[in-house]
Amino acid sequence: MLNAVKNLLTRRQIIGSGMGILGVGVAGVVTRNSPAIAQPAYKPAKEPPIPDEKKLGWAVVGLGKFATQQIIPSFSQCKQSKLVALVSGDRAKAENYARQYNVNPKNIYNYENYDSLRNNPEVDIIYIVLPNGLHAEYTIRGAQAGKHILCEKPMANTVEECQAMIAACNQANRKLMIAYRAQYEPFNLEAIAIAQKKQLGQLKAIVADHGRNLDPKDPADVWRMNKKLAGGGSLFDIGIYSLQAARYITGEEPTEVCAMTYSTPNDPRFKEVEENVNFILRFPSGVLANCTSSYGYSSTKRFQVFGSNGTLELDPATDYYRHQLTVKREKVQEERQIQEQNQFALEMDHLSESVMQDRQPKTPGEEGLQDVRLMLAIYEAARTGRTISVDSRE
Amino acid sequence: MLNAVKNLLTRRQIIGSGMGILGVGVAGVVTRNSPAIAQPAYKPAKEPPIPDEKKLGWAVVGLGKFATQQIIPSFSQCKQSKLVALVSGDRAKAENYARQYNVNPKNIYNYENYDSLRNNPEVDIIYIVLPNGLHAEYTIRGAQAGKHILCEKPMANTVEECQAMIAACNQANRKLMIAYRAQYEPFNLEAIAIAQKKQLGQLKAIVADHGRNLDPKDPADVWRMNKKLAGGGSLFDIGIYSLQAARYITGEEPTEVCAMTYSTPNDPRFKEVEENVNFILRFPSGVLANCTSSYGYSSTKRFQVFGSNGTLELDPATDYYRHQLTVKREKVQEERQIQEQNQFALEMDHLSESVMQDRQPKTPGEEGLQDVRLMLAIYEAARTGRTISVDSRE
Repeated sequence: MLNAVKNLLTRRQIIGSGMGILGVGVAGVVTRNSPAIAQPAYKPAKEPPIPDEKKLGWAVVGLGKFATQQIIPSFSQCKQSKLVALVSGDRAKAENYARQYNVNPKNIYNYENYDSLRNNPEVDIIYIVLPNGLHAEYTIRGAQAGKHILCEKPMANTVEECQAMIAACNQANRKLMIAYRAQYEPFNLEAIAIAQKKQLGQLKAIVADHGRNLDPKDPADVWRMNKKLAGGGSLFDIGIYSLQAARYITGEEPTEVCAMTYSTPNDPRFKEVEENVNFILRFPSGVLANCTSSYGYSSTKRFQVFGSNGTLELDPATDYYRHQLTVKREKVQEERQIQEQNQFALEMDHLSESVMQDRQPKTPGEEGLQDVRLMLAIYEAARTGRTISVDSRE
Repeated sequence: MLNAVKNLLTRRQIIGSGMGILGVGVAGVVTRNSPAIAQPAYKPAKEPPIPDEKKLGWAVVGLGKFATQQIIPSFSQCKQSKLVALVSGDRAKAENYARQYNVNPKNIYNYENYDSLRNNPEVDIIYIVLPNGLHAEYTIRGAQAGKHILCEKPMANTVEECQAMIAACNQANRKLMIAYRAQYEPFNLEAIAIAQKKQLGQLKAIVADHGRNLDPKDPADVWRMNKKLAGGGSLFDIGIYSLQAARYITGEEPTEVCAMTYSTPNDPRFKEVEENVNFILRFPSGVLANCTSSYGYSSTKRFQVFGSNGTLELDPATDYYRHQLTVKREKVQEERQIQEQNQFALEMDHLSESVMQDRQPKTPGEEGLQDVRLMLAIYEAARTGRTISVDSRE
């Protein structure tokens, strides 16, 4: 343990100092002032895992269904990340998971003593898996405690919150990454490559649909009916995957959006947040993307890309596993065989690697801010019945 | 031949007189003033074909690819319709097809002597398979020649033309039907039944996509690049299938539309007509439909329906054959086994039957007018960047 702490301290001093010491950090990776001027495309580490004591230590904040069923079990697949701390308002629950995942009970925190993580050198990175309305507070407090942050999507409820989160992490010289797992998931990466390498010819349209039935009896869904905690309805929760797909498939930022929303009257789930949002995005290259988002239809997580020479469909596109990628060209339909991988592990390792290499993660705070800005524009377009111009990132 | 003519004359006198003679017409079907007050859903005739001399006689106007490769060969599958005349500007071509399909050469017409069809009692119904910009003229002249009309979609280029066509047919007391083949095609009928019988629960969204690469070297496509002949671009030609699907699946009329269009700059195909149109329709029950239409992407003819308890996908949905209907409920995916049928024959027989029974066809002129009205509203929404309210049929 002592060695691990020492290693981490050394690593933090070298990499996280912001002083740009030239040299080679842990695991042979190069630190900030190396010759890497243009940041190459991210490749998931293909090497074997680094020794456990050199992995970066992660604290998971919030022990809801997603954290306990997807995130925490995925550390076992990580090559550069390890779970070392838990933050929860429920001590007994945290102790239970700590036992199960071999987390030292002294590394269990609650929301009051969360800031004292600053005194725990085992923790390098905090993963915020809280309701959206709490993302800003816990990101800012985490950065001020000297930790790098992975924050669940959507980044926050407002542009101002996003900006404050980015500013806090910059000021603390900590990395901020938004947990856009699809951008680390191999089937999605293959779809992006196919589209951007023009294997479908010139891209013309994208159709992306994400829906599920919000379950008012599921504790993981209860807070999503609360506007203050959720920020928005289906759009903020899952429509964001449709929006993301359109953005990462084109590799462009939309310039215009029009939209309509609908919520079933008298459905108690939709007193505060919306049920359905349909929207169209215009991209600079001319691609028009039709997206749907719903809390009212049965499970749907798919997108389709239409090009001049072919189409691809990823269905499911943004599930946890069992993705299916079909490419159709010249009437020949082919199902792509791709090695399924744990996208949560890839995602977390990306941030660990970004910290170790002192590089901007692929999905930084600015990526999350852009989606929040766009989602608010989508709401505005629906509310006003007008096509809204959206500037690219400021 | 004489007997056939006699039969037709008798039938026309009874059924087409508009005088509502109570009684039983040919083939045992009931004429207008029978007790059938509410018009039941159309069922394709399951009986064997009626004797050839009792079938209604059809003239096909325009001998392009669609007419010669799809329509004309389909008469052999008809039970109540027979091909008896051809109208073409190319006499040699017409003679060739007349020989092939056993049409009496005296029943070959051109666009100048077209009106003399009035003197040919063998012809009951005229099928207009001309460029869109000629639909109004040839429908009106055909009705004035005393014939019933099946007119290809889109009905015409403007609302005014559609209204004039309806008025001309009313005045001549002739039936007017628009050739919306998908509304007679068994897979589409099954999809409609599944949706409207609530087998997917409450409908939430429809996604309908129709695209193909317009081929400037294909004579069948050349006139489609001409605004005056085509009326519009991809929307008028194939986006109309997306629009239709949204309407017939819901069984409702949209109340609002928003849209965006895009045409590749400097693409010679899109000097006069648009390439891509994406639009959203709002229906009274709350269903929001996302539709695409393109002359720039590889062949796509599909729609998907999202309900609270399941989804269905028809892909291809509006091809000539080999449709595929997939229904997914509670994670169980099922491909529906449906007997493929010749939709052109069903469609033509529907009009023959409607004429014989003196009933309004299922897709009358008003149906075509509604689509033209909606398509023009879609263009307006795209042009103005505003959500356009569309009144239901006047």
